[in-house]
Amino acid sequence: MELTIAQSVLAELIETAKNGISTKPVDPILGSLLIEASDSGKLTVIGTDLNVSIKTDSVANIKQAGTVALNAKLLADTVNNLSGELDIEVSDRSCIISHSTGKCRIVGGNAEDFPSIPETENPTVISIPSKKLQAALLSCLYCSSTDETKLVLTGVHFQLQGENWSCASTDGHRLAFVSSKLEVSYEPLSFTVPRRSLIELEKILSNAAQSSSCTLKVGKNTIQFILPNAELTSRLLEGQFPNINSFIPRSFANEIVVERKGMEIILKRISHFAEKKHKIVKILWEVNDQQATLMTGNTDIGDAVDSLLIKTQTSVGENIGIGLNSGYLQEALKHISTDEIVFRFNKPLQPVIISPVGGLLDQLTLVMPVDVQDFNKPQQLQDTSKPDTEAVAENSAEAEHVSDETINREDKSTSDTPATNKPKSRKRKQEAKLKPELETTTV
Amino acid sequence: MELTIAQSVLAELIETAKNGISTKPVDPILGSLLIEASDSGKLTVIGTDLNVSIKTDSVANIKQAGTVALNAKLLADTVNNLSGELDIEVSDRSCIISHSTGKCRIVGGNAEDFPSIPETENPTVISIPSKKLQAALLSCLYCSSTDETKLVLTGVHFQLQGENWSCASTDGHRLAFVSSKLEVSYEPLSFTVPRRSLIELEKILSNAAQSSSCTLKVGKNTIQFILPNAELTSRLLEGQFPNINSFIPRSFANEIVVERKGMEIILKRISHFAEKKHKIVKILWEVNDQQATLMTGNTDIGDAVDSLLIKTQTSVGENIGIGLNSGYLQEALKHISTDEIVFRFNKPLQPVIISPVGGLLDQLTLVMPVDVQDFNKPQQLQDTSKPDTEAVAENSAEAEHVSDETINREDKSTSDTPATNKPKSRKRKQEAKLKPELETTTV
Repeated sequence: MELTIAQSVLAELIETAKNGISTKPVDPILGSLLIEASDSGKLTVIGTDLNVSIKTDSVANIKQAGTVALNAKLLADTVNNLSGELDIEVSDRSCIISHSTGKCRIVGGNAEDFPSIPETENPTVISIPSKKLQAALLSCLYCSSTDETKLVLTGVHFQLQGENWSCASTDGHRLAFVSSKLEVSYEPLSFTVPRRSLIELEKILSNAAQSSSCTLKVGKNTIQFILPNAELTSRLLEGQFPNINSFIPRSFANEIVVERKGMEIILKRISHFAEKKHKIVKILWEVNDQQATLMTGNTDIGDAVDSLLIKTQTSVGENIGIGLNSGYLQEALKHISTDEIVFRFNKPLQPVIISPVGGLLDQLTLVMPVDVQDFNKPQQLQDTSKPDTEAVAENSAEAEHVSDETINREDKSTSDTPATNKPKSRKRKQEAKLKPELETTTV
Repeated sequence: MELTIAQSVLAELIETAKNGISTKPVDPILGSLLIEASDSGKLTVIGTDLNVSIKTDSVANIKQAGTVALNAKLLADTVNNLSGELDIEVSDRSCIISHSTGKCRIVGGNAEDFPSIPETENPTVISIPSKKLQAALLSCLYCSSTDETKLVLTGVHFQLQGENWSCASTDGHRLAFVSSKLEVSYEPLSFTVPRRSLIELEKILSNAAQSSSCTLKVGKNTIQFILPNAELTSRLLEGQFPNINSFIPRSFANEIVVERKGMEIILKRISHFAEKKHKIVKILWEVNDQQATLMTGNTDIGDAVDSLLIKTQTSVGENIGIGLNSGYLQEALKHISTDEIVFRFNKPLQPVIISPVGGLLDQLTLVMPVDVQDFNKPQQLQDTSKPDTEAVAENSAEAEHVSDETINREDKSTSDTPATNKPKSRKRKQEAKLKPELETTTV
């Protein structure tokens, strides 16, 4: 094997393919990249952890074809510190890289030992604009479970039906859902791709041309994502993915628009005070005063209260207090790119839907509220009154007053539900899981 | 306690004082900052880990004086996410911070429990320009030992004599030494300051005004570094610091100047190939060809050879091969800020001195060489010959040839030394320690 290639080109091939490799390879060969120089003048670099494989290629001045497996880290560390034109020569596993001022020799592994990438048999072929696919992944990946025991929930679920295409993910406490239209119509098809594979795909898509499309070849157990000069192959996850649509309410009594940045800043500010275990922040929607007041419970380290303006709202009348996990709320906001966001919800203990106002895709995050019946009030924050904060003080005072009503009203409503549900509703704060919540709220 | 202060001012006070606190406080009160509001209109913030204390202050609009101890992390996380004017009010340990849109309440600790900062009794007072002191710390700190069992070596040793002032540090394998002149003359004085204290002092100095001076108040067991609005108090290390001067050769047969960046790039490039344990890189000074060739030994992962131009040199004649720990060499270069550096040395097994050409202070790093008698040659890098790398190939070929001579010659010279030294010199590669090296080389 003998070739000449520009350092920048080789470095990019290595960087991309390296993402296919596990951080802790179980076998030296899985810590290597397979380098293939073909007579057709194409240099291919492949990295894999057996679950996902990334293959990337470029034209190179190939004098003699060949194959070698080289330790990915050593190769990257070496090439990243070189520059200019590189002459690469491989003779019996020993790869010598010559550059303007010196040479490096990397002892390679046996290319025959490198695992072969699984073929996708008689696949369904779909084409999705790269940037839309990337946006979908960014909006869904963070809600997929990182707990390997959750099997199918560790992936993102793709669904095609006619001209509609959607992605969904859930970890049991929250879910993300995005949908968009395709240019052509497809037979109904659904499959679940592992989180880790899609994290790597997102990196590849981030470098893809604005106008490019990603071709999906969907097989029974594997899927290929094909882009110009890069190809990711992944196994598919088995098992029935939960029916996301059944969790998402159809209609909402309240639709409230606020500025994303403003709420992000407040959450960053007060969430340090939220008690560690459930990180509960209570949002009091003061629809009459057109403001939202966020507060944490009274803990031994302290508490906080803060408020921001409501830009638009569909409802007036009683204030509504909703308890949410501030971590989930912050993550939901972090994965929305528009300036304004809309909160959609019905009653305090029913799902809260957070969506961008506008944006590239139809996107939503569903977060389950936490029961704030025994939410301790930040009383001491209402004693002092400074001119510029009087409003807030009053709000939080009113907040407690009204939210109690809200909660009592809520109690009545839930008390209509079968007594068997009561224990569940009591257990809510311990586990704000998707299922039990929905059981108790869809009566 | 009641006051008004700009968020930016308070945030800076907290950030500075926080550096005095341990990352793992043994006691909650040591994880707190002491906030003192005085009737004189000064707000003081203090953080300590008992070994080092940082005290910083600013003017504030103080309505009522008082003291409180607040958890440093929670306070910083809170204040860093606020903006504008802050109203702070403390009543029985509970600190309420009011801002334009809300309030936070932090429950404080008991100010009485906060440790008092040790006084420095009848101190010697010295004044050093802030930026010179900072440069001295940056040049010395990295050579001080991180091994707590090495006691006095975990500090930087200050020495004053007449108008001369110097700092020195060593971990037993290498040493750093800087010296400069003072404006006034002082009685002989020397003391050793713990590494950790000086790391924090360097941060404070980096924010000090270009023209400012740092006042040192040196006592028996403690030292104070006083800057406008910031004061660091540290305990001093006990024990006799090694006599650095005795290690530094007086005259040098070779003085060779190279470009710092060029050598840094090469080291970064080839050090991945240096065998893990001793990280040996061999520099072959090819004084006749005015170039330096760096190479790693032949290991099972591979090897590398690279070369750069010598800018100026004092000697001609035979090439000299010196083995050095590439990690030490890289660190030495990293802590020099000038474009050119000078290597000073005599024989291959004697200390190598690396200094900046020019710079703010007289600065040097001494690194002990490693014996490269059984250094495996990167033979396979000499077989192939590309036009642009022919030079390098030849060089490294010649390199080995000549360096062998050098080493044999060196053997003869050491064979004149008492037989008792032999074992030491054999053990060299295992431990390139300062002392044994000097014993064998100063015969």
